[in-house]
Amino acid sequence: MIEVTLPDGTRKKYEAGVTGLEIAKSIGPRLAKDAIAIKVDGELIDLFKPLHANCKVELVTFSSSEGKDVFRHSTAHVFAYAVQELYPNAKNTIGPSVEEGFYYDFDDLDITGADLPKIEEKMKEIVKRDERCSRIDLTLDEVKRLFRHNHYKVEMASEFSVAGGKLSAYKIGEKFIDLCRGPHVPSAGYIKAFKLFKVAKAYWRGDPKNKQLTRIYGISFPTEKELNDYLFQRQEAEKRDHRKLGQELDLFMTHEVSPGCAFFLPDGTIIYNELLSFLRAEYFARSYHEVITPVLFDKQLWETSGHWQHYKENMFLTTVEGREFSLKPMNCPSHALIYKSQTRSYRELPLRLADFGVLHRNELSGVISGLTRVRKFQQDDSHIYCMAEQVEAEIVALFAFIKRVYAEVFNFEYRMELSTRPEKFLGEVAMWDKAESLLQSLLEKNKIPYKINPGDGAFYGPKIDLHVKDAIGRSWQLATIQLDFNQAERFDLSYEGADGRKHRPVVIHRAILGSLDRFIGVLIEHFAGKFPLWLSPVQAILLPVADRHIPYAEKVASLLRSAGLRVTIDTRTESVPKKVRDAQIRKYPLMLTVGDKEEAAETVAVRTLDGKVKFDVPAAAFTAQLREDVQRRVLQPTI
Amino acid sequence: MIEVTLPDGTRKKYEAGVTGLEIAKSIGPRLAKDAIAIKVDGELIDLFKPLHANCKVELVTFSSSEGKDVFRHSTAHVFAYAVQELYPNAKNTIGPSVEEGFYYDFDDLDITGADLPKIEEKMKEIVKRDERCSRIDLTLDEVKRLFRHNHYKVEMASEFSVAGGKLSAYKIGEKFIDLCRGPHVPSAGYIKAFKLFKVAKAYWRGDPKNKQLTRIYGISFPTEKELNDYLFQRQEAEKRDHRKLGQELDLFMTHEVSPGCAFFLPDGTIIYNELLSFLRAEYFARSYHEVITPVLFDKQLWETSGHWQHYKENMFLTTVEGREFSLKPMNCPSHALIYKSQTRSYRELPLRLADFGVLHRNELSGVISGLTRVRKFQQDDSHIYCMAEQVEAEIVALFAFIKRVYAEVFNFEYRMELSTRPEKFLGEVAMWDKAESLLQSLLEKNKIPYKINPGDGAFYGPKIDLHVKDAIGRSWQLATIQLDFNQAERFDLSYEGADGRKHRPVVIHRAILGSLDRFIGVLIEHFAGKFPLWLSPVQAILLPVADRHIPYAEKVASLLRSAGLRVTIDTRTESVPKKVRDAQIRKYPLMLTVGDKEEAAETVAVRTLDGKVKFDVPAAAFTAQLREDVQRRVLQPTI
Repeated sequence: MIEVTLPDGTRKKYEAGVTGLEIAKSIGPRLAKDAIAIKVDGELIDLFKPLHANCKVELVTFSSSEGKDVFRHSTAHVFAYAVQELYPNAKNTIGPSVEEGFYYDFDDLDITGADLPKIEEKMKEIVKRDERCSRIDLTLDEVKRLFRHNHYKVEMASEFSVAGGKLSAYKIGEKFIDLCRGPHVPSAGYIKAFKLFKVAKAYWRGDPKNKQLTRIYGISFPTEKELNDYLFQRQEAEKRDHRKLGQELDLFMTHEVSPGCAFFLPDGTIIYNELLSFLRAEYFARSYHEVITPVLFDKQLWETSGHWQHYKENMFLTTVEGREFSLKPMNCPSHALIYKSQTRSYRELPLRLADFGVLHRNELSGVISGLTRVRKFQQDDSHIYCMAEQVEAEIVALFAFIKRVYAEVFNFEYRMELSTRPEKFLGEVAMWDKAESLLQSLLEKNKIPYKINPGDGAFYGPKIDLHVKDAIGRSWQLATIQLDFNQAERFDLSYEGADGRKHRPVVIHRAILGSLDRFIGVLIEHFAGKFPLWLSPVQAILLPVADRHIPYAEKVASLLRSAGLRVTIDTRTESVPKKVRDAQIRKYPLMLTVGDKEEAAETVAVRTLDGKVKFDVPAAAFTAQLREDVQRRVLQPTI
Repeated sequence: MIEVTLPDGTRKKYEAGVTGLEIAKSIGPRLAKDAIAIKVDGELIDLFKPLHANCKVELVTFSSSEGKDVFRHSTAHVFAYAVQELYPNAKNTIGPSVEEGFYYDFDDLDITGADLPKIEEKMKEIVKRDERCSRIDLTLDEVKRLFRHNHYKVEMASEFSVAGGKLSAYKIGEKFIDLCRGPHVPSAGYIKAFKLFKVAKAYWRGDPKNKQLTRIYGISFPTEKELNDYLFQRQEAEKRDHRKLGQELDLFMTHEVSPGCAFFLPDGTIIYNELLSFLRAEYFARSYHEVITPVLFDKQLWETSGHWQHYKENMFLTTVEGREFSLKPMNCPSHALIYKSQTRSYRELPLRLADFGVLHRNELSGVISGLTRVRKFQQDDSHIYCMAEQVEAEIVALFAFIKRVYAEVFNFEYRMELSTRPEKFLGEVAMWDKAESLLQSLLEKNKIPYKINPGDGAFYGPKIDLHVKDAIGRSWQLATIQLDFNQAERFDLSYEGADGRKHRPVVIHRAILGSLDRFIGVLIEHFAGKFPLWLSPVQAILLPVADRHIPYAEKVASLLRSAGLRVTIDTRTESVPKKVRDAQIRKYPLMLTVGDKEEAAETVAVRTLDGKVKFDVPAAAFTAQLREDVQRRVLQPTI
C-alpha cells in the first residue's frame, strides 16, 4: 500500500501500482472524466503511469494551463497520426502546444488549407477508434531503427540522448509512434473537439538557412461547446482585429522600412492626441508635472540604472564620438536625473513627474505585430517621489485615477493583481511585508476585486497590475503601480526632511494607460472601431439630401467646427440611404441629414451610429449639446 | 597708366603702382577713412599694395563681413604685439578672427582676466604710435631664423611652405612680426576701439593630446561708439541668455549623459506644450492633418531620399538584425511614405501633413549649446502636397499663418529672404524661373519686406526664410517655406487628376516656428523670461497678507484652477513686499494680494509684472477676464 496526499491535505491509501486515473475515479466520476494528467510530487506525468511510493498528487484538468498543454500536445499527436495515414511520405518534425492551440511542422507535406477538412475527418476516425496511448523508452539505436525514414527525429534524438540513457516515445494504438517527453492523455478518445486553422511555412529549427517545412496550426477542447465558443470568440476578435480595423479606418499603417514602429495616420493621430489631452487634463487636476526628456543616453546612465547589465539586448545602441549610447527603453533613469538635479526638500514631496517620451525596445522582427508588439511606443509614464508616510495616500489617489479613466470614462470592468516578493529581491523582508500588506489592505478598503500572485513582484518592489475585461470578454493587462525600493539607492536620491536630515524618497512607478500605442490597439478592438464620441476622428458627418443643400451643410459644419468639433460633409451626389450606409462603415458616431425642411428651420435630422434618430434639432442647440458631450467625454452622444 | 573698374562699372585711370588707399582717396575722403582692404579681381589684398595692371576693384569697409575679418585679424596682431612687449617669453601660435571678434592662443603665457586691462593699455599705446603695417615674403630658412624662439610658428611654416616658395609675414613698425596670409589694415592706428573679454584654455591644434595653451578673446570696432553699443548689446544678451535664464527659471537642464539633448523641466514643458496646443489649434483651423511617424528607419529609406549619400555623417546609426537603421534627422521621407500608402486623387489635394516628430542630428559635442545647437529637437514640420495651380494659394495661406503667429500673437517685426536657383539644381530652368517669379510677386503683393539671395536656394527648389528681429535688435532665422521639385520624383509620388491621368504633386516643405527647442530659446531671450501670459508656466501667484488669509487664497486659487489657469500661492510667512519681489524674480505675470479687505469683499488686489496695480477686483470677474486673455493668447494681461 502507498499513501497519497491530495492537495487539500487528505491522505488516502492505495495499492502500489495505482494510476492517476484510478485515483481520480476513487475521488469521483466528474474528476475521472475531467482529469488529463497528474502531478506527482510536483512532476507532471501520465494518468496511466503506475505509482509505487508515497507521494503528494494533484490531478490536472483542462482548466489549468498545464492541462491545456497536455491536451493540445496530445491533439498534435492525433493530428500527426492522421497525416501519417493520409500522407505516408510526410516526415513529422516537432509539434508543440502553444499559447493558443498547437502546431506541427512537417517535411515533404505539400498541402494547402483546402486539405485540412480531409485531415480533420481522419482525426475524427482516430478519435472514434479511441486507441490507447502508451509510453515506451527507447535506446538511441532503437530510435535510429524505428525512425530510419525520418532523419529529423534521429537528429533530435541524437542531441537529447545521454550515453546509456533512454529516450521516451509515445504510441497511439500500435500504428503511430512519436518521440516525446509527454505526458499525454490516456487515449485518443479524449480529444473530443478540434479544429485545424491554417497552413504556413517555417524553417527547420527556425533558421532560414535550413529547409522550409509545412506548419499546420490547430486548436482543441474537451467539448464541442467549448470549441464553438472559442471559434465564435475568435471570429469576433478577427472582426475587431486592430490591424484590420486600423487599416480599414485609416488609423495607422506600418512599413517595412521601420518594422515594429507604427505610422499614425491623421485619424489615428487624433485619437492619440485626444488621449494625451485627456491625460494632461487629469494631470493638471492631480498635480502631476510633465517633463520632456532626451531619447539617447550614454551607457554610463544605463550602468547606473542597471539596464546595461540586465536589459542591453533589448536596447538599440549607437556610437557617437567613441561613446556608446542607447535609445531609452524606459523613462525611469531620466526622471531620477531630474529629481537629482536639485536639492529636494520634504516640502516638495510628493513630486509627480510624468513623461510621454518616445521609447524603443528591440523586439525581434518575427514577433512584431500591429500596435501590441512594437519597437517604438509612448507610455503615460510617471514616477512619484514621496516620503514613506505618503505612500498610502498616493496609492489611494492612483486607485481613484484608475477608476476615473477605466470605469467612468471608458466603462471597463476591471480587477487587479498584487504581485509579491520574488525569490531574488532587494531590500529588507520587513519592508516588503509592510508594503505588501499595505497594498493589500488598500485593495480591500477600496473594494477592488483582486488576486495575489505570490512571488511575482519585480526584484525592486511589489506591484499591482490592472486587468481589464473587453467587450468580448478578453482580459488585457494595462495600468501598473510599482513600488521601487531600488532607484533611490542606485541614483543616491534624497530629500531633506523636516528634521533637517537626509532621507531616501520612496519611488512609485506607475502607468495608467500603459503604452498608448497598445492602449489604442485595445480600444480599437474593444469598441470594434466605434470609438467614444470624444475620441472619434470624425464626430459628425453632414449628409446633404441634394446638391443644393451643400451650402447649408457647410454653414452647419462651420458652426460645429468653430465649437472645436470634428465634422465632415458628404458632398457626393448619392442618395441619403447610401450616404448613411457609407458613414456607418466609417463608424461616424453622428449623421446629420439636411434637406429643405432643415435648411428652412435651421435644424438638422440626427441619426446615431446605433440607429437612434431625432428630427428637427436646432443646429445651435445641437452644437452646444455635442460640445458639452465631448467636453464631458461621454461614450455616446446625447440625443 | 592702368585702368581700374569700380563696382558700379565706372572706369578710372591711375599711374601703375597706385595703391588701394590712393584709389579710395581719389573717390572721396569718407571712403578713404572707411576702407580697410581692397578686393582686386575678386582677391582680397592690402590697401597698401601697389597695383600694376588693369583690374576690377572693390573697396572693403568694416560694414562687410570681409572687412570685419581683416579689421579683427589686425587687432589680433596688435594684441600679440602688446603681449610681446609685456611678456617677452610668451609664444604666440594662431590668432584668427572669428564670428564675434578674434582670439589669440599663446604658450608660456600665464595670465588671468585681471591682467587684461594692462594688456589693453599697452595696445592703446601701440595704436597711438600708429606704426605702419607692412608685408614681407620670407623663405622657410628665414622663418626658421626669425622665429627660432617659437617652434609653433616654425612648425606651421614648415607645413605651409612649398619648395622654393615664400611665406608671407606682416610687421607692425619694426618690432613686431607675425607669419600671416593677410591682408591687414595699413597701420595700427586704424584699431580705434577694442575690448579683451576673457582668458580660456585651448589645446594646440585643438587636440587634447597636445599642450594646453592660453586663449584670449577680444573684439574691436572702428569707433568707440560702435564698441559701446556692442558691449551694451552683449550685456543685454548675457542677461537674457536662454541658458542662464533657463536654469534660473527652472525651464530646462542638460546633463553630460545626453549631450545636446535638453531635459525640459515642468515649467519648460508647459511652454513646449502650450506652443504645441497653439499650433494644433491653428492646424485645426487651417485643415492640416497631424501624423505620428517612427524615429528609426532602415537605410534603404535614406538611400531613396538621398540622405544616406549626402547627410549620413549627421545621422545616428544603429544595426538591428543585420540591417542598418538611422534615427531620423527630418520628417520628409516618412510623409512621402504616408502620401504613397494610398492612391491619391486630385480631390484630396492640397494634403497638408504635419508632424512634431523627435529629430536627431549629430552635432559635434564641441559646438553643442543650450537649446540652439542641439542633437535632439522637434520641429513644427509640415509637407503640403498640392497641384501646381494650388501653389499660389498655399503660399499666400502660409504668409497669413506666419503673420498670425509672428505679428499677431508674438508681436515680432520680421522680413523675408527669397533664395533662388543655385548652381547645382534639379529640374528645369523654366520651372525654377516661374516658381521664383511667383514667390517674388507674392512677397510684393502681400507687402512683405524681403530681399533676394541669388543662388542660395536648396538644390531641390527655391525657398523663403523668415528673419525675425528680437527685443534687442538681433535677427533670428525662423520660419521657412521651401518648394521641393525633388521629393515627388525620388519617391515616385503621384495623384490622379481630374483628367483621369497621373500627375506629380508639388511638395511644399514648411516650418512655422522651426525647431520648437530653438524657438523657445529665442522666446526666452526675446522676452527676457517675461513670457506672454498664455505661455507663462505660472500665470498668477496669490500673496496672502498674513497666514490667516491662506484659506481665502486657496479658495481663489481653486477658482482660477477650475478655469484651467496655472496658479500658485506664496504661503511663506514673509511680508507682502518681499513676496512681490520674489514673484518678480520668478517673472510671474500677475501677483494677487489677498488680505482682510479682499477676503471680506471676495476680491483680489492685482499687480502686473510691469508694475500696473488695480485694487478691489472681484475674484470671479478677474478669473473670467484672465481666462479670456489666455484663450485669446494676448501678450499682456488686461487689467
